[in-house]
Amino acid sequence: MSRVVKLAVIPGDGIGPEVVAEAEKVLDAATAGSDVTFDKTRFSLGAARYLETGDTLTDDDLAAIKGHDAILLGAVGGVPGDPRLKDANIERGLLLKLRFELDHYVNLRPSKLYPGVPGPLAAPGDIDFVVVREGTEGPYVGNGGAIRKGTPHEVANETSVNTAFGVERVVRYAFDLAERRGKKVTLVHKTNVLVHAGSIWSRVVGEVAQEHPEVAVDYLHVDAATIFLVTNPGRFDVIVTDNLFGDILTDLAGAVTGGIGLAASGNINPDGAFPSMFEPVHGSAPDIAGQQKADPTAAILSTALLLDHLGLHDAADAVTLAVEDDIAARGDSIRSTAEVGDAIAARLQP
Amino acid sequence: MSRVVKLAVIPGDGIGPEVVAEAEKVLDAATAGSDVTFDKTRFSLGAARYLETGDTLTDDDLAAIKGHDAILLGAVGGVPGDPRLKDANIERGLLLKLRFELDHYVNLRPSKLYPGVPGPLAAPGDIDFVVVREGTEGPYVGNGGAIRKGTPHEVANETSVNTAFGVERVVRYAFDLAERRGKKVTLVHKTNVLVHAGSIWSRVVGEVAQEHPEVAVDYLHVDAATIFLVTNPGRFDVIVTDNLFGDILTDLAGAVTGGIGLAASGNINPDGAFPSMFEPVHGSAPDIAGQQKADPTAAILSTALLLDHLGLHDAADAVTLAVEDDIAARGDSIRSTAEVGDAIAARLQP
Ligand SMILES: CC(C)[C@H](C(=O)O)[C@@H](O)C(=O)O
Ligand SMILES: CC(C)[C@H](C(=O)O)[C@@H](O)C(=O)O
Repeated sequence: MSRVVKLAVIPGDGIGPEVVAEAEKVLDAATAGSDVTFDKTRFSLGAARYLETGDTLTDDDLAAIKGHDAILLGAVGGVPGDPRLKDANIERGLLLKLRFELDHYVNLRPSKLYPGVPGPLAAPGDIDFVVVREGTEGPYVGNGGAIRKGTPHEVANETSVNTAFGVERVVRYAFDLAERRGKKVTLVHKTNVLVHAGSIWSRVVGEVAQEHPEVAVDYLHVDAATIFLVTNPGRFDVIVTDNLFGDILTDLAGAVTGGIGLAASGNINPDGAFPSMFEPVHGSAPDIAGQQKADPTAAILSTALLLDHLGLHDAADAVTLAVEDDIAARGDSIRSTAEVGDAIAARLQP
Repeated sequence: MSRVVKLAVIPGDGIGPEVVAEAEKVLDAATAGSDVTFDKTRFSLGAARYLETGDTLTDDDLAAIKGHDAILLGAVGGVPGDPRLKDANIERGLLLKLRFELDHYVNLRPSKLYPGVPGPLAAPGDIDFVVVREGTEGPYVGNGGAIRKGTPHEVANETSVNTAFGVERVVRYAFDLAERRGKKVTLVHKTNVLVHAGSIWSRVVGEVAQEHPEVAVDYLHVDAATIFLVTNPGRFDVIVTDNLFGDILTDLAGAVTGGIGLAASGNINPDGAFPSMFEPVHGSAPDIAGQQKADPTAAILSTALLLDHLGLHDAADAVTLAVEDDIAARGDSIRSTAEVGDAIAARLQP
């Protein structure tokens, strides 16, 4: 019985195409000889496409992407300060639009310090946690506006929208994940200042916790959470948090575990109503694009999340293991993007 | 010509009274024999007062505090989870209320890694920067609300309010400060997501930068800024940022420079319309209260900011120097709160 997975591939800008090429290589190696094949469609989206056609994400693009089983994305974004991109905001018009339109309410970001990886902390300890970041609400809803723009009397508002519905579904996901991991959930918010949004999060976490008596629950203000990320990151198992706090914490977590060159993420719609999207946490890094300097590991680890999401757990584990072995063998050698991909793919040969 | 400074002292809760006692000791030692004397009024405010009287900050308290030249605050906040404080929110009702009512639009938070202080980073380098955090706008305005509270259909909004007026005055302060320091200003925001608020900040920084051709300016998204705080904190001189991002960055910065036991802050109204307030960044730590275990250094360094604000620059420098010398001599010895205060005060004897 063979299974064909329709995969939308969005290489994007900058180093995106380079790291995606290696991710595809590993995906193919991990499923070679199995009954799974990938039927890939490439989508040319990002700053380059915008500059050529003026389009960021058309309705046709979106409809076509929706017809796939999953999405692999490299990175999007042009050269910072490029005047032609001044009004583009590729991030909002493409990346965030995909997350919102495809109802990616779980933004899953594992943080693990692999043996042999140098990091900034003197005594990092054992770091292995997952941030479950809400992906479709909070300050990211684009619910803002300004009056008297460009004048000394300008007033700009940004509204964070938080619903019990939206919070509950992501909190449930976090508790289910904690049941399969270290059985601990830490809610991160700023309930002493953002009292209304904070109250939904606290209430829902309290309610869902009742259904998981074996899961320990604690709470940290976001400012305190950043302190623990550098002084005692080993205290975390599953962090559940809102869209903006999750954005901040996961970049810091990436840095603490050896750099966002290793940080993978999944933008997941657990209901399966829409395809989920897997991407490295890092950006398009136009300054090193096309030079084979980028580390494709984060993109490759994102394919492990993708395989897991598709239920191909053995292949997912094999990719993770191949990456771990490759990292352990790394030493100080400088390898090209393709060399890293080749080495990891080679470890997956049967 | 003698000068009497009317000082409002708010010891607060937990370790607040202990650290404030040492701060007062050092303040007295630093001005002994000079023509400056402090006329102090103590205000009993915080969780303890709330539990006794039900008041957080009355109009009379506020009016009386406004009649002073400056405020020294320890820390406020009761035991976390105390059911009697469930609806109190001392932070909003007291601390934030003071910052807003007294128009403390500059929240000044220096971060310096003193020689001999152990921190979490393996290779911290030379850390010496100041965060100029906006103190009267942004997501802190308390402009939120909820409907269908407590139900599965609850929706809670939080609105961040940002004005060109409010941003310009704090940005000007940051540039003036940078002129007297390393001549570099870094704006931290999240302009790719919070486009309206971000656009005020970017525009105003661009405009004020024109008047300071010698000051280098750069921009970081808040998520990227947290990465640099752990991988290259030496790159920062003056960071200017909004209320919430400043809250997060300064706790992380405190951790990176050896813990918030050393982090001082000033809530400043540069116009002098209202008294400015000086306080350690740390909280009330009720778990170690009354045991002489708290490090009063952050409170003591806050008096240096206070003296500076009053124009008593020599006394301010003397306090900073005494603290630096004390830190350098610290070693592994464990001293009581009072012993640390005594040692620093002793270094200030003429
Ligand atoms: C590019 C940006 C809009 C995005 C975000 O803020 O979510 C990025 O920082 C991320 O974390 O994926
Ligand atoms: C106690 C809290 C309201 C406060 C803040 O968020 O500003 C604190 O974290 C701080 O940084 O002074």
